[in-house]
Amino acid sequence: MKTNNKPLILVTNDDGFDAKGIESLIEVSREFGEIVVIAPDVSRSGMSHAITIKEPLRITNISENDNLTIYSTNGTPVDCVKLAINQILPKLPDLILSGINHGSNASISVIYSGTMGAVMEGCIYGIPSIGFSILDYSKNADFTASKIYARHIIRNVLKNGINKGTCLNVNIPKGLPHELKGIKVCRQTKGMWKEEFDKRTDPHKCDYFWLTGYFENLEPENDDTDEWALANKYVSIVPTIIDFTDYVAVKSLKNLENEILVK
Amino acid sequence: MKTNNKPLILVTNDDGFDAKGIESLIEVSREFGEIVVIAPDVSRSGMSHAITIKEPLRITNISENDNLTIYSTNGTPVDCVKLAINQILPKLPDLILSGINHGSNASISVIYSGTMGAVMEGCIYGIPSIGFSILDYSKNADFTASKIYARHIIRNVLKNGINKGTCLNVNIPKGLPHELKGIKVCRQTKGMWKEEFDKRTDPHKCDYFWLTGYFENLEPENDDTDEWALANKYVSIVPTIIDFTDYVAVKSLKNLENEILVK
Repeated sequence: MKTNNKPLILVTNDDGFDAKGIESLIEVSREFGEIVVIAPDVSRSGMSHAITIKEPLRITNISENDNLTIYSTNGTPVDCVKLAINQILPKLPDLILSGINHGSNASISVIYSGTMGAVMEGCIYGIPSIGFSILDYSKNADFTASKIYARHIIRNVLKNGINKGTCLNVNIPKGLPHELKGIKVCRQTKGMWKEEFDKRTDPHKCDYFWLTGYFENLEPENDDTDEWALANKYVSIVPTIIDFTDYVAVKSLKNLENEILVK
Repeated sequence: MKTNNKPLILVTNDDGFDAKGIESLIEVSREFGEIVVIAPDVSRSGMSHAITIKEPLRITNISENDNLTIYSTNGTPVDCVKLAINQILPKLPDLILSGINHGSNASISVIYSGTMGAVMEGCIYGIPSIGFSILDYSKNADFTASKIYARHIIRNVLKNGINKGTCLNVNIPKGLPHELKGIKVCRQTKGMWKEEFDKRTDPHKCDYFWLTGYFENLEPENDDTDEWALANKYVSIVPTIIDFTDYVAVKSLKNLENEILVK
């Protein structure tokens, strides 16, 4: 692999290396630097921050062109980032991009998302990392508007950087460029998935269950949230950190410390 | 399944329904209520908050005794919680317990952890949820001290509750009861896993990679962290919330909103 003065950009996703969404992201990111892609060999949606411990990982070189090398792997999106940094890239990348995911990763979906798993892993390494998702699950989603906004955000981040330890969760409404109203920087909406398992019986009379469900916004009225922005045709950006600590509760639960004496 | 006035407690883990750690947790939790266990049929470590979308889930009834019913499933720890709440339990559980995990889930390990994935899923449903982990990867780890501390914490949470939206990440040092010094309520340590892939070549001359690595504490001097507590033989409790928003950056990145005009 050649190295030069252009930014080195790692691109990954969870829909697989041949998804239309990652093709769009590669197309945009090539304007900015040298691109290395490593992405799952098949769709790995819903993998969150999972890593592969019990099986060996394999890497396949799919293609190698000027400033664009593509690999696939049997691993998760987080494995992709670990493999890239530790086995493939000649140096730490200047930027990690994940997506463009076919489907929303706003609100609580961020925690289930393989797309955002990869982004957060990049963030743990201190590398500026951005996840892009479009609110359209279709394989043939129209990425015209997404590419315009992705280009804008990538340019801004390459120029201005992001604070170490912060990454970006970008969600883009369905629609043509002129239908979108701009960008809102906002917070993660309080919401949850309500499950409705689809229970079926196989030919051997054994039950099995398909996970389905629908998203419920628990604060639809609040206009500082990503779901509000998206419902109102704005691209949402949630600056994202990986600190699960409830700092208020650290103080309020101090009583737990004083109530046990084991001798 | 009978219902009565005892608390209904859901127990799960990521090491599998027959691990020694979950046996210890079942033993302690039976003192407090009616127990339903649903846990993975095999070890599912490192599954984080992953859900199973592309394959059907199956549930196997392992055993049914007075106030203790045990199921296994082919799903992830998060799937276990979703299946329990939506398919198995007669009502929402009063408490969800996960573990006792064979190995630490302190610091950044919380994001890779299937044990804590299940706990956070319970928290999304608004149910008091606690994850327990011991700093001992051995299958035959000694859970004597862990059981004493788990009993204390479960009793406290059943009596006092936890704020909705907060769950607990409890880690327990290796050691006999008299060697542990008590409990510290603390914050998640800044740290990361440094990867060292073990590269091998199979008989067909193809390379494969095993994920290995070691944990690096990025702030070993700070005594308000879970790693400090554990290194000093305290049980650590990190109150945990699921809001990834970087609220400081929501303000500082507002400039991103004004710089794009798409017509």
